[in-house]
Amino acid sequence: MQLCHFHAGLDKPLFLIAGPCVIESEAMAMNTAAALKTLTDELGIPFIYKSSFDKANRSSTKSFRGLGIEEGLRILQKVKDEIGVPVLTDVHEDSPLDEVASVVNVMQTPAFLVRQTNFIQNVCKQGLPVNIKKGQFQAPWDMEQVVAKAREVGNENIMVCDRGTSFGYNTLVSDMRGLAQMRSTGCPVVFDATHSVQQPGGQGMTSGGQREMVPVLARAAIAAGISGLFMETHPDPSKALSDGPNMWPLGNLRPLLETMKELDDVVKKHGFIENSLLG
Amino acid sequence: MQLCHFHAGLDKPLFLIAGPCVIESEAMAMNTAAALKTLTDELGIPFIYKSSFDKANRSSTKSFRGLGIEEGLRILQKVKDEIGVPVLTDVHEDSPLDEVASVVNVMQTPAFLVRQTNFIQNVCKQGLPVNIKKGQFQAPWDMEQVVAKAREVGNENIMVCDRGTSFGYNTLVSDMRGLAQMRSTGCPVVFDATHSVQQPGGQGMTSGGQREMVPVLARAAIAAGISGLFMETHPDPSKALSDGPNMWPLGNLRPLLETMKELDDVVKKHGFIENSLLG
Amino acid sequence: MQLCHFHAGLDKPLFLIAGPCVIESEAMAMNTAAALKTLTDELGIPFIYKSSFDKANRSSTKSFRGLGIEEGLRILQKVKDEIGVPVLTDVHEDSPLDEVASVVNVMQTPAFLVRQTNFIQNVCKQGLPVNIKKGQFQAPWDMEQVVAKAREVGNENIMVCDRGTSFGYNTLVSDMRGLAQMRSTGCPVVFDATHSVQQPGGQGMTSGGQREMVPVLARAAIAAGISGLFMETHPDPSKALSDGPNMWPLGNLRPLLETMKELDDVVKKHGFIENSLLG
Amino acid sequence: MQLCHFHAGLDKPLFLIAGPCVIESEAMAMNTAAALKTLTDELGIPFIYKSSFDKANRSSTKSFRGLGIEEGLRILQKVKDEIGVPVLTDVHEDSPLDEVASVVNVMQTPAFLVRQTNFIQNVCKQGLPVNIKKGQFQAPWDMEQVVAKAREVGNENIMVCDRGTSFGYNTLVSDMRGLAQMRSTGCPVVFDATHSVQQPGGQGMTSGGQREMVPVLARAAIAAGISGLFMETHPDPSKALSDGPNMWPLGNLRPLLETMKELDDVVKKHGFIENSLLG
Repeated sequence: MQLCHFHAGLDKPLFLIAGPCVIESEAMAMNTAAALKTLTDELGIPFIYKSSFDKANRSSTKSFRGLGIEEGLRILQKVKDEIGVPVLTDVHEDSPLDEVASVVNVMQTPAFLVRQTNFIQNVCKQGLPVNIKKGQFQAPWDMEQVVAKAREVGNENIMVCDRGTSFGYNTLVSDMRGLAQMRSTGCPVVFDATHSVQQPGGQGMTSGGQREMVPVLARAAIAAGISGLFMETHPDPSKALSDGPNMWPLGNLRPLLETMKELDDVVKKHGFIENSLLG
Repeated sequence: MQLCHFHAGLDKPLFLIAGPCVIESEAMAMNTAAALKTLTDELGIPFIYKSSFDKANRSSTKSFRGLGIEEGLRILQKVKDEIGVPVLTDVHEDSPLDEVASVVNVMQTPAFLVRQTNFIQNVCKQGLPVNIKKGQFQAPWDMEQVVAKAREVGNENIMVCDRGTSFGYNTLVSDMRGLAQMRSTGCPVVFDATHSVQQPGGQGMTSGGQREMVPVLARAAIAAGISGLFMETHPDPSKALSDGPNMWPLGNLRPLLETMKELDDVVKKHGFIENSLLG
Repeated sequence: MQLCHFHAGLDKPLFLIAGPCVIESEAMAMNTAAALKTLTDELGIPFIYKSSFDKANRSSTKSFRGLGIEEGLRILQKVKDEIGVPVLTDVHEDSPLDEVASVVNVMQTPAFLVRQTNFIQNVCKQGLPVNIKKGQFQAPWDMEQVVAKAREVGNENIMVCDRGTSFGYNTLVSDMRGLAQMRSTGCPVVFDATHSVQQPGGQGMTSGGQREMVPVLARAAIAAGISGLFMETHPDPSKALSDGPNMWPLGNLRPLLETMKELDDVVKKHGFIENSLLG
Repeated sequence: MQLCHFHAGLDKPLFLIAGPCVIESEAMAMNTAAALKTLTDELGIPFIYKSSFDKANRSSTKSFRGLGIEEGLRILQKVKDEIGVPVLTDVHEDSPLDEVASVVNVMQTPAFLVRQTNFIQNVCKQGLPVNIKKGQFQAPWDMEQVVAKAREVGNENIMVCDRGTSFGYNTLVSDMRGLAQMRSTGCPVVFDATHSVQQPGGQGMTSGGQREMVPVLARAAIAAGISGLFMETHPDPSKALSDGPNMWPLGNLRPLLETMKELDDVVKKHGFIENSLLG
């Protein structure tokens, strides 16, 4: 499908959705967007900048939730205009959807809200491409019903995104089979490599993360076969105001992207032999 | 804690929250409420009537979602006034909370929305007792942070409710340890015996259920030790407009309640020897 | 079915299999068996003494493995003769089955070995009652094939026992539905309340345990409906040479058994309403 | 480490362990070994032939279990001598270990038996390289204790192999993080791509499989980073006497191996950026 300025699909090069979890300041947003644009331009990777204006579902109300929607959208607009990259943000049930849609290029829905029919349909009605995250409590094939609901309101530009599945307590597992199974939705499949290494709850006030597993899962997902990779990154994750333990350091991104790009080329050149066997 | 016209707690008799999943008609609501009141009065079980005015998170938009909020609240008011039982309903992010709160005695939040901080706090601000369902993607101890958020807005009348935990794909498991672990929240613990036997997704357009396991899990939970039991029931589940496969037939409820009542008496008479060992 | 000196079944009183995980010394075995006999006689609970002569599957070779088979069997014989209780022990692939069978009243097979066809059949050929533990990696209904293999060699005195199911890493969960589902084997169903609270691996050299959950799960299983309860107990679990973290202190056993006995009476008096719905 | 005629490790090219699940006949063994040797020689992939002489743990005793150990070992010897490939087979608790060790080049232990200390150590005492499969009920880090036991008897040529982890009932999931975590054992890590797609039990008399997911998981594991890949293959899986649903058709192996080889080259050329972050 057409996504911003490029095409997305298993027969197209991998695209990247990346940025800091939450907008911490205008300077930080502009700097990270500029660095990511430079890097992805050099490597020839289609890129969408991601950052949140509000984190509605923090473990504790003592955690940073963002600069607020007005300031957040102003900064995203500036990133879009001055850095020249498309921008994506996530919306929640109390987000002013039309206001957000007037600024961003792509909308994203949170995993926890995937079963909220009104919400999913209201987001999709905005007419922008939507990245729908699979619930941690869902099977890959459950996304077919979700996509059917999304399409009912006339939006054909839907992506499905895996950010892990509940596996015992306070643990997620990434089932690489799911990335292939979700092809049955007809949507580009995206793998979220940084939320997939979260250790939800279980640490008291905040969630933990296994940053060292980001490259392992990112490489695995690309070799399994995906259209896009989602990854949160930060100049200094240890100081990040949200999701520090699972973000990838911006300074270490280049070698990871180089490997990913080359893997994606190899896999897509050879094609997906399983597709002849998938139902 | 004081809950409607009775006290709830591990040192108080088991209370029951029961009713049809969704309000299908005024006649059906009145009839089921009357039957449940008679039955629980005879058995001496404190009772709260439950029914939903809207099912926001159906698997498919082709499923029945309810009569609408105005008609639903009118019927709940009538049940409260004419049958003389307290009523509970579940709210969603787009529910008019104050309007609902002006009718019902207890509010309930859905498992999928347990991590939506604004929503949970807005519900708790209404000042009514709130039954908060643990997310299927959460560990029992994760409810401590949820209850902390709920109490931050000044509501001390919080219950926590288990309706199962994700266990592989399209399956829930009820960990009876969790009912004891959630005592650390200081809140009455409720077990939802009918949603716990749901088989979420996986059947295409609707969710399945294992009705035959409702008595097994209900008995087990009561023996593990709980303050209240939640159970959806219907005069003819095979014709129910929602959640038929997991509701318990109203006509078979008496023997189940008799067993439950007697088990609860035995367990609470002996006390909970594990409490001296729990952290 | 006839089991030692009593009948076992959902329409018979709960029986108890209990004792220290491993035979630590003759004095300790005799003392615990005598204490357990006195206690169960007083409460009217049919009783089988359990202890192992060898722990083949310790996490580390540095852990205590037992006094050896000859000394172990000599002590079990003495317990049987002098205390006057039937005895059960677990066997492994390298156990001299006929030698063990000449001493004990009941044999038991470990969960990890449930799929070893030769082994299961060789044990069952000894002609004694056999308690077969479900693998942690198995579904309850998988036990039907296991029981079919056991019966093929002509042994009809088979029990099936649940000691938990893998749930994420280093965690077991007890699915109370499984206790009802395993009734379809036609065998008495036993719940192992102490291994079910093990935290396998994950602590380096030894496995951990949640002793405080033993009463919670034991009560729940009895209310779900079982024929027998298996429970390891020790005079001082903190000094036990094996499985200390999950054994129940012998000195605290009486109140737990009193509760269990009364729960079992109530549940079996009312009957199992689900049996009319189970396939 | 040195493994047969090549070196195995994350800095060496991927090796392949492949062959039919069970030796069905001499002709079939010779033909598949010859075909696999030709194919792997052409692609430059170090190769070990795998086939079992006995399947001890079939779901049903009605399933084919093999030609017997004498005939099985005779055929493996012939494959080794006449085709000129090293051979691997799996052993069980009742296997004559020295007899097997006198024929094969590599021994393999089943996942279900990973906690049987005596067995693991007896196999390792034979002095051959051993491929130890992680239990489906184990976490990746639990393999450290297993490897410690194996090394205690003086064998340093140990490999660890992942064939999936229990995920709900009758389902396995392959956690790609585990392949990186098991590097901490210091052993070459092998991924078993065909048993990982088994659907254990749950189909009554036999286990099912998702053959279409073999390429997905094989590619993902190679990109995650492994030393070797294990894969069962058969000329006509639909007629295989064992494990048909999860074996990969021999005739479709070349394109899969070509992709795998190229992915392995790319990944190992770039190195494993996570190793600097792993504990």
